[in-house]
Amino acid sequence: VRELELIAALEGVLSQAAPPHPRVVRWLGDDAAVVRAAGYAVTSIDSSVDGVHFRVGELSWEEIGHRATASALSDLAAMAARPGEVYLAVGLPAETDPADALALVTGAAQVAGRHGATLAGGDVSRSPVVTVTATVVGWAEDPGQLVGRDGARPGDLVAVTGALGGSGAGLTLLEDPRAADGLSDEQVARLHRRYARPQPRIAAGRLLSAHGATALIDISDGIATDARHLGVAGEVSLVLEAEALPREDGVDAVAAALRTDPRVFAATAGEDYELCVCVPAASRALVQEAWEDRFGSASDALALTWIGRVTETGSGSVPGVTFSDLGDTLSGFEH
Amino acid sequence: VRELELIAALEGVLSQAAPPHPRVVRWLGDDAAVVRAAGYAVTSIDSSVDGVHFRVGELSWEEIGHRATASALSDLAAMAARPGEVYLAVGLPAETDPADALALVTGAAQVAGRHGATLAGGDVSRSPVVTVTATVVGWAEDPGQLVGRDGARPGDLVAVTGALGGSGAGLTLLEDPRAADGLSDEQVARLHRRYARPQPRIAAGRLLSAHGATALIDISDGIATDARHLGVAGEVSLVLEAEALPREDGVDAVAAALRTDPRVFAATAGEDYELCVCVPAASRALVQEAWEDRFGSASDALALTWIGRVTETGSGSVPGVTFSDLGDTLSGFEH
Repeated sequence: VRELELIAALEGVLSQAAPPHPRVVRWLGDDAAVVRAAGYAVTSIDSSVDGVHFRVGELSWEEIGHRATASALSDLAAMAARPGEVYLAVGLPAETDPADALALVTGAAQVAGRHGATLAGGDVSRSPVVTVTATVVGWAEDPGQLVGRDGARPGDLVAVTGALGGSGAGLTLLEDPRAADGLSDEQVARLHRRYARPQPRIAAGRLLSAHGATALIDISDGIATDARHLGVAGEVSLVLEAEALPREDGVDAVAAALRTDPRVFAATAGEDYELCVCVPAASRALVQEAWEDRFGSASDALALTWIGRVTETGSGSVPGVTFSDLGDTLSGFEH
Repeated sequence: VRELELIAALEGVLSQAAPPHPRVVRWLGDDAAVVRAAGYAVTSIDSSVDGVHFRVGELSWEEIGHRATASALSDLAAMAARPGEVYLAVGLPAETDPADALALVTGAAQVAGRHGATLAGGDVSRSPVVTVTATVVGWAEDPGQLVGRDGARPGDLVAVTGALGGSGAGLTLLEDPRAADGLSDEQVARLHRRYARPQPRIAAGRLLSAHGATALIDISDGIATDARHLGVAGEVSLVLEAEALPREDGVDAVAAALRTDPRVFAATAGEDYELCVCVPAASRALVQEAWEDRFGSASDALALTWIGRVTETGSGSVPGVTFSDLGDTLSGFEH
């Protein structure tokens, strides 16, 4: 009964804060949501568990809901799908304050709404640990609008959106505030936001798809791992320059506090939810122009940085990723 | 990395055991699954947590996967939707045997396949407790084929599929084997199956929809609670006879061991995943005939039992459910 009351309260919050898109025919309050479909449904499910993917004491409840939902929406960005609906299953300890549960769902609904998605259904259950599972559904009229992991071809160029390492640096600062030495309050706050409130690169993914992207993935495990997925799926090698990887402002200071190579930190810390994309070399100028038209070219605009190229898999080498300027430093991450 | 290896093993099992339906364009192995849509998507998400919804020691791993998936698919039965895809997020303690994880996913894939659904995607993450979250997607060409909770009208008749109390009795036997006194091994095994391997009433829901059902819900919390949802959503009263509720074979003996009224046990134990349906009185003969054509009328056939009627909400009474032959026995469950 307590769960039913909490569900009723959540439904009240959602009805006011985030009314459903007109395509949503039935949402909260029935056995299932009903949504008018487009041609193809693009669906992903992703769980976040307290103590594994985040820690309750380190994030606000809104941030917990935001982060779990954003990381799931990032999979839609990585397919270049148009966001549709989010379904949220929340596991909560019995002692959870209902206001905290409402904040969690509000954070989820807000980031969904910001990227054009409706939080259309959910489930609240008791659990010994806070667990947030988000299923995200996107839509495409034509499967040709979508970009998988497997399309990279020799001769393609490789780019990355935004800057890397910020999320990992933000987490480091939560766990060891001494790593903030030499950083301004503004830099610390920005790194925290990069960890706690990532923004899925929905608009960027759709722009890259519209301009000929051959392969696309979001950076959840670190680009050393995620670019390897593109190489393996496409049976090619991605040859990247670690020095070319764009690093978030403040990452170098945090890496120095950890006595880590900042290039390696940016390539492996993960959870930046930027996109790694492959594009035919002939399309580079077109993509760059479209990017600057959409996102601008000011120093604080979302960046697109060219970081390497795709080659055939050489004799004896396996499909994957190589950093031309790191030698064996990253070999543990490449296999 | 261990999670990546487990995911690869799971993908291998699924590729062999349950190849995807042709409408599934991309499934495992990319950022998201891609599925050719029909007119309307019907979606529900449902979590099962060890120690809350089941106990690891009481069920086999296949049963854990089956039960979590079946309970989610039951929401599609309750909407009369055609099953499409299942997405499974599994949280597992670090010490979980990979063979157990594979058995869990196999159980999920098998019950999905039996009811026409494809296990099309998933997520494996570490968690201190075994957690299975299933998102189920069904399809309908026309929203008029779907049946919500809110359509019951005064004059409708109320029916229930199958028999009630079996799941609760099966759970009781797991927790207190002495409650099996007087039951045959076959009865005990059947009650265990009712708890461990429920079958969503997909075909029944679609038949009832095609023959004029006005309101439909699946019985997860017990018919005393679930029928109340129909009354509240439709702003009517469901007047049921507790004595008319069909009870699973063996339930009376288990209820006697618990010193409980077997009618109350059947109405409140829950998790039978049968359907409670409202039908215009004029359609009863047609529904009955179609039911027997489809499911037969032998004593072991799936039953459809008429258990009450829908009335206007009387002066001073609130929308909901009343048991005409129980007095106040169930009043705690009605509010």
